[in-house]
Amino acid sequence: VTSEQAADGFVLDPRLAADTVAVHELPLCSLRLMNDARWPWLILVPRRTGACELVDLDASQQSQLLQEINLCARALQRHCAPHKLNIAALGNVVAQLHIHIIARFRDDPAWPRPVWGHGEVEPYSDAALQARRSMLLVELSDA
Amino acid sequence: VTSEQAADGFVLDPRLAADTVAVHELPLCSLRLMNDARWPWLILVPRRTGACELVDLDASQQSQLLQEINLCARALQRHCAPHKLNIAALGNVVAQLHIHIIARFRDDPAWPRPVWGHGEVEPYSDAALQARRSMLLVELSDA
Repeated sequence: VTSEQAADGFVLDPRLAADTVAVHELPLCSLRLMNDARWPWLILVPRRTGACELVDLDASQQSQLLQEINLCARALQRHCAPHKLNIAALGNVVAQLHIHIIARFRDDPAWPRPVWGHGEVEPYSDAALQARRSMLLVELSDA
Repeated sequence: VTSEQAADGFVLDPRLAADTVAVHELPLCSLRLMNDARWPWLILVPRRTGACELVDLDASQQSQLLQEINLCARALQRHCAPHKLNIAALGNVVAQLHIHIIARFRDDPAWPRPVWGHGEVEPYSDAALQARRSMLLVELSDA
């Protein structure tokens, strides 16, 4: 378990830090990739200490979050043309506000059920993780 | 299975119509209550024919959706002071765009797992359904 502290004092939840890898810093959120090769799975974490619910953000932060969700959703669509996107703010296990954006396919291991808690995590190989991350960065920059 | 057609020609998905009851018509969305007494569980359905993904809505529709999500989230907080809200657009089973806003408690039947697909639905009694709906309408109008 590691902790990651940003220049503005925001500390990423240790479990999120352990389960994900950094992709990019957006204006509001840290964009992370879940280290689970079963699904292309992005996580946005608004760098706002103490925020647990969407309604804990003010209107301008919410508007920015919406832009960043759109960016991630479109990047995943270009990256892998999923049958469906799953976008969710749950936080039952990790209270720190974070938004899942997950590419789903009709032949994926959990379809049509949700991915959370399904089976065992399959971490990427180092090479596959870097490849996925690089491809997503290209799609994010094309937005 | 019933179908519900709005004045603007929008037709609610038959499965959503069967699993939920109408609560209120908001500017963008039909607000429905899931007929499952295990959780206070609202569903917003944007009345936009063909929309399946959040990114199928244009910027002004997305902004309106965000306002309606906030309205529902705050109404649920006042209604039952949940430990956590779960807010999600999944759509793996019903493709028509719809957003779940669910009040979660640390002693609820699925905690901390997601509610979708958990156990058997427990429909409200008629009296309990009307009571829940009426209480939510009060909280929605107080927003």
